[in-house]
Order: sequence, then structure tokens, then C-alpha cells
Amino acid sequence: MPITVQDVLDKLMEPVNHIQNTVDTLKAGDPAAEVKAIATAFMATHKVIEQTIALGANLLITHEGIYFSHHDHTEDLEKDPVYNEKRRLITESGLAIYRFHDYWHRYKPDGIMAGLIQALNWQSHIVENQPAATILSIPSMTVAEISEHIKGRLGIKFLRFAGDLSMKCTRIGLLAGYRGGGSLCIPLYEQEDLDLIIYGEGPEWETPEYVRDANNQGMKRNLIVLGHAESEEPGMSYFAQCLQKMFPSIPTYFIPVEQALQVI
Amino acid sequence: MPITVQDVLDKLMEPVNHIQNTVDTLKAGDPAAEVKAIATAFMATHKVIEQTIALGANLLITHEGIYFSHHDHTEDLEKDPVYNEKRRLITESGLAIYRFHDYWHRYKPDGIMAGLIQALNWQSHIVENQPAATILSIPSMTVAEISEHIKGRLGIKFLRFAGDLSMKCTRIGLLAGYRGGGSLCIPLYEQEDLDLIIYGEGPEWETPEYVRDANNQGMKRNLIVLGHAESEEPGMSYFAQCLQKMFPSIPTYFIPVEQALQVI
Repeated sequence: MPITVQDVLDKLMEPVNHIQNTVDTLKAGDPAAEVKAIATAFMATHKVIEQTIALGANLLITHEGIYFSHHDHTEDLEKDPVYNEKRRLITESGLAIYRFHDYWHRYKPDGIMAGLIQALNWQSHIVENQPAATILSIPSMTVAEISEHIKGRLGIKFLRFAGDLSMKCTRIGLLAGYRGGGSLCIPLYEQEDLDLIIYGEGPEWETPEYVRDANNQGMKRNLIVLGHAESEEPGMSYFAQCLQKMFPSIPTYFIPVEQALQVI
Repeated sequence: MPITVQDVLDKLMEPVNHIQNTVDTLKAGDPAAEVKAIATAFMATHKVIEQTIALGANLLITHEGIYFSHHDHTEDLEKDPVYNEKRRLITESGLAIYRFHDYWHRYKPDGIMAGLIQALNWQSHIVENQPAATILSIPSMTVAEISEHIKGRLGIKFLRFAGDLSMKCTRIGLLAGYRGGGSLCIPLYEQEDLDLIIYGEGPEWETPEYVRDANNQGMKRNLIVLGHAESEEPGMSYFAQCLQKMFPSIPTYFIPVEQALQVI
């Protein structure tokens, strides 16, 4: 019996209570189409869409939206050539694109976090899974050593940090995606006795400035900033593995992207 | 006749119509105190506060807030040792700290933008000052050459970019602070026929991903990300110059900070 796009979506939402006003919708394509192969990625970049088509997949499942907007606001892009070219590519291909964001974060544990921890090979160091953060206790390593470990495991060229590279850390707070805000991260240092927070993305003059102040006061507090995609992409690679188990008959691919911002 | 803290604040707000619900308030100190010397900075970091005191200044004017929060939310920091130590330092010193954010941005031209353009030595290349962006037309340079120019002029060690370092650019959109969001930046490329946008800070999967897609489509669109402080600090250096002219009898200092996030 053929498996449709809607069958896949229903199966993915099954483990979680219905979420109202979710961004997890079918952004393009026909829910009744038979799924030939599935690709997953952090985001449906123009290149990822081309790669999906080239792989023969007709369902692309991504964590973020297509058009650079969490709530799909495209009103101001109607005359934009980049937007129109991307839209044309999607429409002509007939590709179905589903965003799997809110539901995947609500899995227990959070699918994005589980994938990140697996990629870092830190599964055995988990102390507690909180709703937005995971607390870890690792064997003592310096901030520089942890940075090299992360870069090697995630295959990324650079990280940003605040604090002291030579400081030894064991207690870590890990937050994927845009969860680096001060109101979420700053109280965690004291509450959880953290040496280091590792997050995806956050406002620059919140947590980084707190860490700078802490160091100027002689306090042991450090920060590593992975980047948004860098912190969530492993969760979409892990998702491809889960998907392959759910639908063994459908070929499933994970498509990685380069770091969107490079350093000069 | 002595000049008080309140005299300075009144003078600074004079050129702009009264702003309701502004974050520009006296965060610490006594408005009736006589001003001995003034320091300006991007932000009142712990170190900046110590330097201000060491300079003999008793009024510190900064662009951002003290406690890592745009709206001064400190409820969750009451037990935090870094917060308490910083608070103690401020209280014991008697230092007055004023935030000069909304008003300075409302000067004509925007004081932060004027300072950034002066620092870049691009005053003669201004095409148009829009409310949130300045459009510039510079002699043709590659993205790499522009990056080196910026790093040298602003004295910063690294920048981030998306696009093609070898691409020649003339039309630039410049946006200081947290104005890198896709809804603001993305339409500017087409509307203003821009080769390059340079902004302070913005969400990573908005404008950077648009630029990535544009390049994969063969479109000439580039992005340089300065960092939030990096983009606004020159406006506070420029402000110190303006302040010295307004109050010639009061010694005035500008205190720079290092980049809060370093690259590894």
C-alpha cells in the first residue's frame, strides 16, 4: 500500500499532543502524493532543494522555514528575484516540503537535543533533561579542548566563545537553536553550578556580556556559541535515522549544509 | 555654576521630541550630583565601570543596559553573584549611569550611524539616510577588501560574512545594532539594488540564508556581519566628541571594549 505525504506527517505528530498555532505545516506540495524517498535538512536552502530533487526524493522535511521567516511572512518578497526563483524551483519540481520544528522539540527527549548530544558523543554524561536545556557533567576538559572536541564531532570550522580557553570545565548547560537569551541562560550558571554554557544562537549583549563580567570579577563562567544551524543540524541528521526506522521501505537521506556565515 | 547629571541629560534629550516608554533612563546615581567628568561606552561592563571610576568620572553614559537586558529585567538575578558584585561596585562608587539609546538613534542623522560612517571614513559616499539603514555608493572594492578596510578602521580582529569574497561591490546598505532581521534587510537588496549589506547583529537563518540562496542562484548579493557592539561602539566614541563640545568645561572620555565573542 502506498505511503502518502500525509501518512508520514501523521506518524511524525503521533507521539506528541496536538499543538495549536504550530509552524509545523506542509509548506509546499500535495499531501496525497505517494512518497518515493525522503530527505531531511536543517533548512530548505536552494541547494538543498536541488540535492533533494537529484536524489529522487519528493518529500523534504526541514527544521526551519523556507523563506527566511519563522512565521512565513513573504509579503515583502513578492518582487524579489531570489524568492521567486526559489519558489519556481519548488513549484515546478512538485516537491513536498514539511517543517518539523515544534513537534520534534516536544518529543521526549527533544529530538534536536538528542541528536546534538549523540553527535557530541556525550549521551553518558547527561545529568538532567530540562525543557530548554540539558545539564551535563563531563570529565574535566579546558574550554579550548571542548571547542576542539565540538568542532571535530560536528565538522565545523569555527566557534565563538567568551571566557577563558584554559579554564577546566565539568558542569555544562547545553541549549540548541535560538535559546541563548540572557533570561534563559544567565540564571542557569548559578542554579546549576555551571562552568560552561554551550548554545546555538542568542543576543550578543546578554549572555556573552554576563560571561565577560563574570571573568572580570574572577568568576569561573564560560560560553561557547555554536551557531543556530550548527546546533540543530545534528538533530535533523538523527531524525533521518529515526525516520528510516519508522518507514523502512522508503529511502531516507540527510543533507548537511555548510556554515552560513564564514569568518574573515 | 555647577553642572548636574540632570543638566547633562536634559541637554542630550533636547534635540529630539519626547519619547514615551523609552529605555533611556538614569539607571544608577543621583540626578542632582555635580558632574566632575563623563565617560561614554557601548555598555557598562564591569571593567568599563572600574575604568570610569579610575578616570575620576562620576557619570557614565552607555548605549545598552547594565544587566544584560533591554528592559532591565533583573528579577531572576537577585541571587546571582556576578549581578550582585556589579551592583555593589556601582552602588558603593556612587556612579551615575545613564542609558542613551533611543534618543541618540533619533538624532538627525542617527548618532550611532553617523559615528559608524565617520569611523569607516565613508561620509562622502552616503546616498541616503533612511530611518533604519544608510545607503552608500563606494568606489568598487571586493568583499574581502571591504572586510579588511572595516577591520582596520574599527580595530576589530574578525568579521563574519556570507557571499563571495572576490565579488566587487559598490552599492552598500549599512545597518547598525540589531537591525539584521530578514524583514528589514532582505527587501533592501532589490529595492536599493545593493551588492552588499553590512549589519551589526541579526537572526542567523534569515538574511545570511537569503544571501546563501542568492549566491547559489548566481545572484550578486553579499553580507558582512560586524557584531552588535562592533557596529555601535563607534557611535559612542563619536558621542564623546559631541559631548565634549556641548560641555567644554567637563573632561569627557570614551572607553572602548574588546569584542565580547572571540573566534576559535
